[in-house]
Amino acid sequence: MNTNKIFDIKDERNLTMLTDFYELTMGNGYFSKNLQNKIAYFDMYFRRVPDGGGYCIMAGVEQLVEYLQSLKFTNDDIEYLESKNIFSKDFLEYLRNFKFECDVWAVPEGTPVFPNEPLVTVRGPIVQAQFVETMILLTINHQTLIATKANRICRAAKGRTVMEFGSRRAQGYDGAIYGARASIIGGCDSTACTIADQKFNIPAIGTMAHSWVQLFDTEYEAFKSWAEVYPDNCLLLVDTYNVLKSGIPNAIKVFDEILKPLGKRPTGIRIDSGDITYLTTKCRQMLDEAGYPDCKIVVSNSLDEHIIRDVLAQGAQIDSFGVGERLITAKSEPVFGGVYKLVAVENDNEIIPKIKISENNEKITNPGFKRTVRLFDNNSQKAIADLILLNDEEIDVNKPLTIFHPSDTWKNKTITNFYYEDLAVKIFDKGNLIYECPTVLEAKDRAKNELNRFWSEILRFENPHTYYIDLSHKLWSLKHTLLHAANNAY
Amino acid sequence: MNTNKIFDIKDERNLTMLTDFYELTMGNGYFSKNLQNKIAYFDMYFRRVPDGGGYCIMAGVEQLVEYLQSLKFTNDDIEYLESKNIFSKDFLEYLRNFKFECDVWAVPEGTPVFPNEPLVTVRGPIVQAQFVETMILLTINHQTLIATKANRICRAAKGRTVMEFGSRRAQGYDGAIYGARASIIGGCDSTACTIADQKFNIPAIGTMAHSWVQLFDTEYEAFKSWAEVYPDNCLLLVDTYNVLKSGIPNAIKVFDEILKPLGKRPTGIRIDSGDITYLTTKCRQMLDEAGYPDCKIVVSNSLDEHIIRDVLAQGAQIDSFGVGERLITAKSEPVFGGVYKLVAVENDNEIIPKIKISENNEKITNPGFKRTVRLFDNNSQKAIADLILLNDEEIDVNKPLTIFHPSDTWKNKTITNFYYEDLAVKIFDKGNLIYECPTVLEAKDRAKNELNRFWSEILRFENPHTYYIDLSHKLWSLKHTLLHAANNAY
Repeated sequence: MNTNKIFDIKDERNLTMLTDFYELTMGNGYFSKNLQNKIAYFDMYFRRVPDGGGYCIMAGVEQLVEYLQSLKFTNDDIEYLESKNIFSKDFLEYLRNFKFECDVWAVPEGTPVFPNEPLVTVRGPIVQAQFVETMILLTINHQTLIATKANRICRAAKGRTVMEFGSRRAQGYDGAIYGARASIIGGCDSTACTIADQKFNIPAIGTMAHSWVQLFDTEYEAFKSWAEVYPDNCLLLVDTYNVLKSGIPNAIKVFDEILKPLGKRPTGIRIDSGDITYLTTKCRQMLDEAGYPDCKIVVSNSLDEHIIRDVLAQGAQIDSFGVGERLITAKSEPVFGGVYKLVAVENDNEIIPKIKISENNEKITNPGFKRTVRLFDNNSQKAIADLILLNDEEIDVNKPLTIFHPSDTWKNKTITNFYYEDLAVKIFDKGNLIYECPTVLEAKDRAKNELNRFWSEILRFENPHTYYIDLSHKLWSLKHTLLHAANNAY
Repeated sequence: MNTNKIFDIKDERNLTMLTDFYELTMGNGYFSKNLQNKIAYFDMYFRRVPDGGGYCIMAGVEQLVEYLQSLKFTNDDIEYLESKNIFSKDFLEYLRNFKFECDVWAVPEGTPVFPNEPLVTVRGPIVQAQFVETMILLTINHQTLIATKANRICRAAKGRTVMEFGSRRAQGYDGAIYGARASIIGGCDSTACTIADQKFNIPAIGTMAHSWVQLFDTEYEAFKSWAEVYPDNCLLLVDTYNVLKSGIPNAIKVFDEILKPLGKRPTGIRIDSGDITYLTTKCRQMLDEAGYPDCKIVVSNSLDEHIIRDVLAQGAQIDSFGVGERLITAKSEPVFGGVYKLVAVENDNEIIPKIKISENNEKITNPGFKRTVRLFDNNSQKAIADLILLNDEEIDVNKPLTIFHPSDTWKNKTITNFYYEDLAVKIFDKGNLIYECPTVLEAKDRAKNELNRFWSEILRFENPHTYYIDLSHKLWSLKHTLLHAANNAY
């Protein structure tokens, strides 16, 4: 049913002004102090996986690319900023001729990612590298949140179909559109969001609402009309009046009277209310006895990973889940706490690492220009650990490598017979895009394939094994040197 | 600091295809059954106030108007739909020439609203009235959710300044932009979201991030530079290293050395981490002793209405709150459960009410074409109750009016000496816009003024008095007649 033409991949809005006002006051400040061209390094990363899960699924890079490519201050934007009477002429003139010049690295969409790993790194003139903070966070935070939630829900469904149904309860239009996109990357099979199909070539599906059934004088008449219009895709919503006394009997009658003479089989029935376990068990029995064991049972009503796991454990007979509001808003934990922190500056081409200290250990940044590698065991082909290094560090796979826990440093492990892959790829070079974004379905495949490279303990639904995210010895030493220096300053 | 020119009020995207796919399969079904021009009535309403609150603040009407005005299927849209191979030529031809023809009523933005009251009512050819379901729900659900949450947070702040700071953690770009808009309607004083200011003429503000402080060799140098650039708006972020040992002493030094000689006063200091009550109390003392009792204290760190209420009760010294992720996502309850239900159809110009029944009383719809009035007492000028009537019912304010609880019908009350106001206004007549949307600041004023017309018990922060939402006797009787008929059918 899906089309191959992608109709409108670009977001035609100019979102340059979707930025926290302080990015502009700081930008003006850099100009006033003649610091605007100082080269700075910023990392975007998160500190904690939502919902107690073991990992997140990276998403949103394509939208970040679109944003960075279309950065442009219009005359209206400049006029607006002028009207604030706080920005210098030099700064406004710079914005008027703004040309993005940064280097950007990002982890590809669909990659499983872990706390403290740089997901996006930006290097460039501080006035630019600072300015893009708000949109990098907004884009990656949102889509990674939803892709991660979708992945949890799909795992709970254990291979059954999961459809994203949440547009009407999303937080804004992009919440629906890019939320649908991220849901597919996380593992959903389809969406109800039509424009997401049109834009991203992800399958949109849908049948009927209660209003279709209400419109006719009887439920039977409503079902009969539907079967006549859609004999090849006859999925009936059976809970407008009473599922077992009315909905299923009427559905079976219509399957018998309309589809059977045409030699067609029904697609399914959908239940959107009531006791899912009880109703689906009874429905399965009634449909089987009527000769429709191939008629799928679809359920949809405030589902999430916990309810799906529970009803399946109770023996509910379900082929397909429609998941709405609790997926599209990540209801159980609707905030993804990604941050964007200054980690280094350059002085005469020398990289000077910077640290942000805090009373709270978790909030202390990892300083310097870094890279992250994922280490794999040559025998099992499974991931062993991720290692964050300074960018100029090399790994020699022919030598044993000792990795250690960044705070409980006595926890260490020496690995041999391994290989590694860099997590991030460079996507912009001096402002020029040098990366081709994968399609949404390719990113979805990547998520599936990359997760297969982890031991199942790491992927566990609750209380997963903690995957090792270690710092290289050089990075660890640098961090501790800077921490001691900062602490001794007061 | 705010500009008066509104630069770009329109959302330039064509969001016609942002619709659940089933709106299209049903539309095609209506066509196949020659039902497309049957006149239908749909109500959009919600069933429960989030967070245990007493009321919601209506928001999102302006965006709904923009959407309905710009409904248009492009050639690409038609080509996409054709590629699905399920839509009839007639239906696609209809969409190609689509012209919105419905009547629409909506409750103005800023109005306090209650469960089960129609917030939006659409009357028109069912193929159209059905089609707009997804976007009506998406728009009103999102903005009403955020305006309601903002109103709770502002109430907790008891008149202190509340700034919306959440863009980076919003769910998508619209989540940030329209979330900022709705936050202002709910009562926030300003936003950090620049584009929201530019579009809606709501004040955007912002100063510095930790990266500004990190960029300089010392905190003192960073503060000094800032004061030199912004002597008239010097607000310093004091928690990059240590608030009491470093941040405040450096701030005071800079106020003394840079601002004082210029005859300027500091704007404030901001704290973004740590124990708010302890730190603000100490900061207040230090600033007062240094001769800066007028220096405002701003705090911002995962705040919501509960934390604000707690720290104020503990004696925290705060002038201004920056509220981010917990406002922009309505974190405690991020789903607004508005629904859109068929309530009537017309047969030969006669209105035939429709009902959707359910095992769950709350989910049974109020049938028929209705209006809602708010009843006010002539003496106190306070609201007494809201009454939902059939549209053709009149109220005679010169006669006593008996209202009663829709399920506990023995709870009744006879009122005299009252007046009433209709909640909804007609905004589209046969597809033509006949309504001028108020500005965001006018909607904000409306929320403030209308809330003053309620008794304080209704507005209580927790465990509010339940405001009466009653049905007229005629509507109540109709509902029960239809319920009995439906129940007897099985």
